[in-house]
Amino acid sequence: MTSSWWLDACHPLDPDAMEQARARQQQLTKPAGSLGQLETLAVTLAGLQGCERPSLEHVAISLFAGDHGVVEEGISAYPQAVTGQMLRNFVGGGAAISVLARELRATLEVIDLGTVDPTLHLPGVHHLRLGAGTANFARQPAMSEAQLQAALGAGRDSALRAAKQGAQLFIGGEMGIGNTTAAAAVASVLLGCAANLLSGPGTGLDSAGVQHKAEVIQRALALHALSGDEPLRVLACVGGFEIAALTGAYLACAQQGVAVLVDGFICSVAALLAVRLNPQCQPWLLFAHQGAEPGHRAVLEALQAQPLLALGLRLGEGSGAALAVPLMRLACALHGQMATFAEAAVADRPA
Amino acid sequence: MTSSWWLDACHPLDPDAMEQARARQQQLTKPAGSLGQLETLAVTLAGLQGCERPSLEHVAISLFAGDHGVVEEGISAYPQAVTGQMLRNFVGGGAAISVLARELRATLEVIDLGTVDPTLHLPGVHHLRLGAGTANFARQPAMSEAQLQAALGAGRDSALRAAKQGAQLFIGGEMGIGNTTAAAAVASVLLGCAANLLSGPGTGLDSAGVQHKAEVIQRALALHALSGDEPLRVLACVGGFEIAALTGAYLACAQQGVAVLVDGFICSVAALLAVRLNPQCQPWLLFAHQGAEPGHRAVLEALQAQPLLALGLRLGEGSGAALAVPLMRLACALHGQMATFAEAAVADRPA
Repeated sequence: MTSSWWLDACHPLDPDAMEQARARQQQLTKPAGSLGQLETLAVTLAGLQGCERPSLEHVAISLFAGDHGVVEEGISAYPQAVTGQMLRNFVGGGAAISVLARELRATLEVIDLGTVDPTLHLPGVHHLRLGAGTANFARQPAMSEAQLQAALGAGRDSALRAAKQGAQLFIGGEMGIGNTTAAAAVASVLLGCAANLLSGPGTGLDSAGVQHKAEVIQRALALHALSGDEPLRVLACVGGFEIAALTGAYLACAQQGVAVLVDGFICSVAALLAVRLNPQCQPWLLFAHQGAEPGHRAVLEALQAQPLLALGLRLGEGSGAALAVPLMRLACALHGQMATFAEAAVADRPA
Repeated sequence: MTSSWWLDACHPLDPDAMEQARARQQQLTKPAGSLGQLETLAVTLAGLQGCERPSLEHVAISLFAGDHGVVEEGISAYPQAVTGQMLRNFVGGGAAISVLARELRATLEVIDLGTVDPTLHLPGVHHLRLGAGTANFARQPAMSEAQLQAALGAGRDSALRAAKQGAQLFIGGEMGIGNTTAAAAVASVLLGCAANLLSGPGTGLDSAGVQHKAEVIQRALALHALSGDEPLRVLACVGGFEIAALTGAYLACAQQGVAVLVDGFICSVAALLAVRLNPQCQPWLLFAHQGAEPGHRAVLEALQAQPLLALGLRLGEGSGAALAVPLMRLACALHGQMATFAEAAVADRPA
């Protein structure tokens, strides 16, 4: 299967619904603009959902996990076995994203794209087993063309399931020891920015560890001789299974007309890949937060993103996006339920 | 009644509960510190509530409204009649804070401390009628000693009601055409900072309007010859009924052991007054957001506050604080419900 489905057209926005929502915002009993970013958000969601008063009752979370061969270069504070152990925790209900999904009444599906333990079989986890993690990209391409296609397709399949179930918002999460290294490598090429400016502590490296991580990336980029105008090759050479799945999911959501809430650094790199592959998807990508990982800011700036939160988060799993959902729901409630000046017999300001 | 009740001791924090909560955070299945500000928040709430796993089911919102004589100096974009009209909207369910209280399942009480329409009688509103708004502080003190005491006491009464009803979090809101002018005047004295650095557009002044507002404040401060070490006189001379009520409420909450979530610029000025009157109250004051009004940043910095949100809000009513409640609830849910490394059989990082 080599069809380039990600190039297909994205769902159009509804300019009439946006205009109606914008007009409604001006009529609500508050000084114009006084709800700040939440007003813009309500208008954007109106355009994405094609209705004047959007809502976010149905939220779908898909968590993509995969291992990374580059961990053998010593770039992570945690052992690789944690990826599989956390898969158990996700479906067991004890991980951060499990708690958040429950509290938000969101669906949570967990997809194992390929971890170092190929015997792993956990009820509730979709085991796709694209490989025992990616190959070590410091020595060879992280994945084959077939693995790349399968990972992109796995993300698309998640998005299609979410769309079919009536999701109004899609959140992609990720888990994979070593994946801030892969994300920093991808971002370094796509942004044309030195690896040391995009490398951070991840789950907890010290400063010597961060420097080593940047050197590993810089050497890998020299090895593969990558260029920013070939995003698919960048993804295959230095990306990861879960990063490719997120990229595929975001693109398919935009094609299906499901709004996406992008989580942290790794998800934002996947969003950057998606936009480079098909720029039409950009309006469908909303950004939840500015995280603690230093490369996140550069990626968000390149995407001209205006994240809702900045809480120093660096957990991943989709947790930062989940944390922003109540704010988005309240933005919809305010937009949909507040009285207009006329309804409440309140004087609007003198012209 | 001239007793200085606000000087009474505040409720002590529970250091043992904080230490237990801190230890628990280190055991949860996530890299240490990866939930950023939400980890600190859970530990703080543990100390305030005196239990390892705090919760925020019961939230009480008290909205204090009052008119401002200084409006006759032309410092507001909206007519003074709007204060009374909005009181109707608050209890009618159409205002932003009404929608938010409903969505959060929070109680909402509305207290009219004194508006320009003394005949106003709205079911569901507590009409205290301390005066037909404050006096114009550009010409005379905003309120008398008796009015000041009554307004502080009205805030305290709200806090006592909230405590009696089992509130775990108190939010004070405010409404009063002209009250960013009063708040900027108070902050200017307490921070020893020129009025033009703390004056902003409020509900929507243009730049000439903002300059005029700063000049009105500067003249009033010269008239009253105020000093930062007499916060009560500052409050009486250039404050407002609702600002005094918020100050009283915050102090009484700290005495009763009810955590406070402070809203925007005006509420933060009331918090600054509370801390100057009784510094023991400071740990009980949590800060919801960094708003759009330019003076807000300076007041938050003086209070060493670390607000949760920064969404460009400038509505008041307690709306910014209400918007932060779900984040705080999710911080509690994560802290209380996540599995530990031992429970989930996940490897913590190698020592």
